[in-house]
Amino acid sequence: MFFEGSEKKVEVLVHNDNFSLLTDINDEFWAELVNCCHAKILSSISNEQCKAFLLSESSLFVWHSSFLILTCGETNLVNSVEYFIQQLGVDKIKHLTYQRKNEYFSHAQPSCFGDDIKQLSQYIDGTAMRFGAMDSHHNFVFHQNNGFQASAEDKTYEIFAYQISEQASKHLTREGVNSADIRQFLRLEELVPGFQIDDFTFEPYGYSVNAILAGKYLTIHVTPQADSSYVSFASNLNLIELLPIILAVLKPASLDVLSNNELEFEALTKANIPSNYISQSLVQQSLTTGSVINFANYILPKQHFSQAVILDVNANNHAL
Amino acid sequence: MFFEGSEKKVEVLVHNDNFSLLTDINDEFWAELVNCCHAKILSSISNEQCKAFLLSESSLFVWHSSFLILTCGETNLVNSVEYFIQQLGVDKIKHLTYQRKNEYFSHAQPSCFGDDIKQLSQYIDGTAMRFGAMDSHHNFVFHQNNGFQASAEDKTYEIFAYQISEQASKHLTREGVNSADIRQFLRLEELVPGFQIDDFTFEPYGYSVNAILAGKYLTIHVTPQADSSYVSFASNLNLIELLPIILAVLKPASLDVLSNNELEFEALTKANIPSNYISQSLVQQSLTTGSVINFANYILPKQHFSQAVILDVNANNHAL
Repeated sequence: MFFEGSEKKVEVLVHNDNFSLLTDINDEFWAELVNCCHAKILSSISNEQCKAFLLSESSLFVWHSSFLILTCGETNLVNSVEYFIQQLGVDKIKHLTYQRKNEYFSHAQPSCFGDDIKQLSQYIDGTAMRFGAMDSHHNFVFHQNNGFQASAEDKTYEIFAYQISEQASKHLTREGVNSADIRQFLRLEELVPGFQIDDFTFEPYGYSVNAILAGKYLTIHVTPQADSSYVSFASNLNLIELLPIILAVLKPASLDVLSNNELEFEALTKANIPSNYISQSLVQQSLTTGSVINFANYILPKQHFSQAVILDVNANNHAL
Repeated sequence: MFFEGSEKKVEVLVHNDNFSLLTDINDEFWAELVNCCHAKILSSISNEQCKAFLLSESSLFVWHSSFLILTCGETNLVNSVEYFIQQLGVDKIKHLTYQRKNEYFSHAQPSCFGDDIKQLSQYIDGTAMRFGAMDSHHNFVFHQNNGFQASAEDKTYEIFAYQISEQASKHLTREGVNSADIRQFLRLEELVPGFQIDDFTFEPYGYSVNAILAGKYLTIHVTPQADSSYVSFASNLNLIELLPIILAVLKPASLDVLSNNELEFEALTKANIPSNYISQSLVQQSLTTGSVINFANYILPKQHFSQAVILDVNANNHAL
């Protein structure tokens, strides 16, 4: 069965004079915010700087002066933003960024990116852009235009792996696979040594993990089924440097790398991505916030003919 | 403005004992059939073997014992098939093949491929398959399972060119461009020398052409706008051998090649596609009809970073 792993992502920075999202807002507020996009909180972990919620559809991270929420499937994340604005007021927002990966079954989505930015534009004046061509992997980004200047130290990274190896897909979908198995398979201890971990294995398959250590975070979401496999990584750790581990584990035929404020993007990707991966997209854009976004998609060229995928004519799903 | 150039395509072979689609069916029937998927007949040309209709959304070809219809945009082509079945009876159909290219704004489509084959399956027992990965260019094919054996001589070819060169896009969208200009630009006289031609230039842009000569046909549909450029070719001429002309004219960054019963696919593509095009997909599948379908997608690797595409936040369209 097809599952739309592609995520929508919102990052909101707030004005934090005598106010902390982490200590002045209770869990019921976040539960309701998550509920607004039709997701649920499954569990959470926290430290002095961060609370990380594992969701039925991805993750929510709350820090003192910002929060980050990623949701996959058929969620309408802008509704959660609207809830935040209605509860706390738009003036509480110092800066907002909304991002959406292209989907592979947008027919089933409650909104498209055009709808989303129309809804956001009721509250927030912003700029919208697309990274990557319409007919290949691409990301939409909408960011607020209000004179806000981002810190060059605020570096974030995302990796989206598609068409993972048959071996990886089989391992991650085998019956009885549990979180401990998957953690080991993903080499989590090497990716985030010493981090506090919260993870969940979904039925019949699928896996999510949040990892935090002081101000550092990593979240991974795994859609392992062979015909629509997708594994996403989001972090403020340098994921490009971790690509050798990620690629060795997943061996994806297609790979997106997205970074915010990584000025060494070109050198780092060259050093960490084997040369048999070919660049399908290379995009770099400076924002009015001073941030620089880099996006690249790499593919593994096919050498041999494979057979077509036979589809179930009578399947009661939209996976076609 | 984004236009969904991706086509749906139906080919129907009929039992032709004392019956000819070409001479026993009038134009009003075809006009109504085309109307059922919300397209219109613009004009037509004919010879003793074929009548070719140019449509507001692509083309319809009628021969004595078969017809082929391609429609783009937001058409629901299966409704036209349903009309044919309701008017002439499903027993008139000797064999049916339905094909659909993946779209880039499926949110706006009246149906998805899963919906289409459910509708077709009410009348026809068939097999559905996908050529190419979900996260890259792919074609869906549904074909009837009724013991029909195709002729190995029935060879057809399709080329789908995406991200045509800036120069080609500019030429094809410039103000006042007319059909004679576009014919020359596409080097139509070299592609189909001596063919009867029927073409149409759309406002504000877009171009369609049908060309026939005895039993041979070529149809080309051009969506030239820079941000969603797409040019499709369908023919029973060997389009792979014509690729050097097509690639020289359009210089696309992405190229699909699809063939039916071309057993020299690998050698022909190797000979006619420059080696700087990299294979993203290579699929070969034998059908129960005895036909062999080949599908390949090629991309031009990116060497340099480009900027993001800035989108109009206030645009009243779904092009995002």
